[in-house]
Amino acid sequence: MEYSGLFTDLYELTMMQGYMLQNTNEDVVFDMFYRNQPFSGGYSIFTGLGDLLDKLENMFFSADDIEYLRSLKVFQNDFLDYLKDFKFSGTIYAMDEGSVIFPGEPLLRIHSTLMEAQLIESLILNTINFQTLIATKAARVAYATGKGALLEFGLRRAQGFDGAMSASKAAFIGGADATSNTLAGKIYGIPVRGSMAHSWIMAFDSELLAFRKFTELYPDCTILLIDTYDTLGSGIDNAIIVGLEQKKKGKSIAVRLDSGDLFYLSRKIRKRLDDAGLEDTKIVASNDLNEEIIHQLITDGAKIDTWGVGTHLVTGGTEAAFGGVYKLSAKEIDDKYIPTIKVSNNAIKTTNPGIKQVYRFFDKNGSAAVDLIALDEEKISKGRPYTFYHPMYFHDNFTLDNYSSIKPMLSIKMKDGKRITDIIPIQDLQNSVKKNLNDFDTSYKRIINPHIYKVSLSEELKSLKERLLDEYK
Amino acid sequence: MEYSGLFTDLYELTMMQGYMLQNTNEDVVFDMFYRNQPFSGGYSIFTGLGDLLDKLENMFFSADDIEYLRSLKVFQNDFLDYLKDFKFSGTIYAMDEGSVIFPGEPLLRIHSTLMEAQLIESLILNTINFQTLIATKAARVAYATGKGALLEFGLRRAQGFDGAMSASKAAFIGGADATSNTLAGKIYGIPVRGSMAHSWIMAFDSELLAFRKFTELYPDCTILLIDTYDTLGSGIDNAIIVGLEQKKKGKSIAVRLDSGDLFYLSRKIRKRLDDAGLEDTKIVASNDLNEEIIHQLITDGAKIDTWGVGTHLVTGGTEAAFGGVYKLSAKEIDDKYIPTIKVSNNAIKTTNPGIKQVYRFFDKNGSAAVDLIALDEEKISKGRPYTFYHPMYFHDNFTLDNYSSIKPMLSIKMKDGKRITDIIPIQDLQNSVKKNLNDFDTSYKRIINPHIYKVSLSEELKSLKERLLDEYK
Repeated sequence: MEYSGLFTDLYELTMMQGYMLQNTNEDVVFDMFYRNQPFSGGYSIFTGLGDLLDKLENMFFSADDIEYLRSLKVFQNDFLDYLKDFKFSGTIYAMDEGSVIFPGEPLLRIHSTLMEAQLIESLILNTINFQTLIATKAARVAYATGKGALLEFGLRRAQGFDGAMSASKAAFIGGADATSNTLAGKIYGIPVRGSMAHSWIMAFDSELLAFRKFTELYPDCTILLIDTYDTLGSGIDNAIIVGLEQKKKGKSIAVRLDSGDLFYLSRKIRKRLDDAGLEDTKIVASNDLNEEIIHQLITDGAKIDTWGVGTHLVTGGTEAAFGGVYKLSAKEIDDKYIPTIKVSNNAIKTTNPGIKQVYRFFDKNGSAAVDLIALDEEKISKGRPYTFYHPMYFHDNFTLDNYSSIKPMLSIKMKDGKRITDIIPIQDLQNSVKKNLNDFDTSYKRIINPHIYKVSLSEELKSLKERLLDEYK
Repeated sequence: MEYSGLFTDLYELTMMQGYMLQNTNEDVVFDMFYRNQPFSGGYSIFTGLGDLLDKLENMFFSADDIEYLRSLKVFQNDFLDYLKDFKFSGTIYAMDEGSVIFPGEPLLRIHSTLMEAQLIESLILNTINFQTLIATKAARVAYATGKGALLEFGLRRAQGFDGAMSASKAAFIGGADATSNTLAGKIYGIPVRGSMAHSWIMAFDSELLAFRKFTELYPDCTILLIDTYDTLGSGIDNAIIVGLEQKKKGKSIAVRLDSGDLFYLSRKIRKRLDDAGLEDTKIVASNDLNEEIIHQLITDGAKIDTWGVGTHLVTGGTEAAFGGVYKLSAKEIDDKYIPTIKVSNNAIKTTNPGIKQVYRFFDKNGSAAVDLIALDEEKISKGRPYTFYHPMYFHDNFTLDNYSSIKPMLSIKMKDGKRITDIIPIQDLQNSVKKNLNDFDTSYKRIINPHIYKVSLSEELKSLKERLLDEYK
């Protein structure tokens, strides 16, 4: 598949032409990072890298694209000729897809010419921001469900075609067990699941007949929707009739609640099922769920085995965007990379200068203890104590000696425009997320008011930042 | 372009097979409608229809798709053979794209076989829900800006590729003046705009040099970003230098604020510009804006001419989904359409039965006064009084005599699977939205706490609903 280079903000193109005409197309380094955890959460899950590398390898400007740009009457022939032959030729370092990430850390580090780096900004942010948002949401929802299963049901409320497709993929990577989106099932190899709609029930003369017919057809994956008419009346009565018929044949069913108070109903339904001898009948619940509601329901003792989550899982719900940004961190002058800084009155918006690496320090129990952002040229390795500086308040620092291991988080993923890592199967990405989250104490994974994981600067990076801030003043 | 029929929830396919095997594939009518205005607003803007009709005309199952379904081991050969030759052959009535819409009104009415109606549910909801959400948001934001211009800047925070493309289109239809998304500009013919990034400033040795170089290159569309270092210091100082240089050449510039308190800064900047004789220099503002913030800034007297809105405009912000649903309203039995109803303990979730039309009644001044949902077989025309019943509380009703005209809102858009309406140019759609919104009193368009527009049932529809509710009991 080929991707049009026009999928970018116009100002990237006008700036590119500017750099070309000013002969200021030096080599640069840009960081992609973010400033705040979405969902007031304790972590995010880095996703979308595989897609991004694919798009960068296949990005081009068609003759049509060039003619469109010419029609805007702001681009000159030399620049349009440059675009005609454009192939991204930069080098990218990035976190592994599925990494647990924190604010301020470079997630991607782009080494390229200024023009190339500028062109791909919008594409990088569009791809990584959305998929990371959804994988993070999915990890939170999956965590809230505990031992329950999580089905992603969001296609109909997703933000367009790719809003559904990318979301089904990212939700699976983040921890969903299956999707209702059949095309995502085919293309990405995600398990697909479904039950029935109210219209199925309404298409038959009686609810019992509708249940029986469905069960005959799908004896091995029967989920009966019991809330069309009266959940605690005809709904559960008819489900029990069919459930007992199936039990005689050695089959089991599940029932689904899609409205009403899920705590109250699930407990009543569980009791009715148990009293009828249908202890193995699972209860599936859906209806505008998110991780806070699920957490509350489980804490209160709702009897729900499987959670169907749609809107919130594929859109982020009340937070519909991940705030990743893309900032210049170094530029080459006279064959040397000079660190750059963007200063803001708002300390959190002041960038960390220079070409950087992120190191995760683990404690004696093997749990992640703290992340260190250091300059790439530093040698960070075991065997000596390190001092960790708060990224903004340098007087806030501590020294750590008794760590057990150090893991560098960024590694090379694309060299001179060529992807140099294999495509990772989606199930492996999901497994990575689970494994990576296991590195963290539950206090960081708490749904509400989590413990804040520490991300610090190395002594050298802190000194560089301090020096540049002084120079700026 | 062809669209895979697999872009649907799995349960649509399992239900379809069920209908086929049970021989219950009768003709049916489904309504798409919604229950609550997004953004606590007074109206929504119906969009996405053109896209939807295109997708329905070009929807098919490839050999690959069929093999994927076979691999799931729940589909039989007869059904897979049916899908192999599938072409949507239904008839669709819908509101005109760009209509002002209200909860409970059928936006689309699908007449087809049960199997076809079921298959396309997910696609209809995915397409219409998202584009309607964004057009609605855009109309609200455009209304808040008053005489100001509105630029859509959302690509980097949009929900994936189509989340950006469809959003740029829907935002333009809803009232945005331009987009930063170059590909959307090319494909949909939307005007494209852009300014510069902080990285442009940082790529030069001084801010003044960066401003000058940009202005030399783009003398006719110069927007200088003045907040990289110090908005009220070097930023505005340098902009005034360049602005005066340009003024001598008969050119004007604009300045852009992307951080800080926009009320305070815009007034200070306006004064500095005016004092320097740059009264025609426009001020562009951006930074996580939405319609409430814009409304507040304008009410307070901020001096902003052009508004750049990104995240909130392309994702909906805190409301990331439009809650459109799709419900069976009638089915054919013995050559006659029998109305169906879905009853819920929650009155707002009980559906309106039967094949319906929506009529908009206008008052003596030509303003929209009330919408009437009636049965399609009723003859609703001028010259007699009508009684309007609240959709749930039938005792709440009133009679209207002194209306000036009546407009039927649903018309046929697709017949037997063929689109029978022309593709409407996007600028015409935007004009329609403006014209349609002009039909409504400002009280319905208020950003916060708007007047609730009345949507009522006709006497006949109310009686039918009452009868079916009684029968159900």
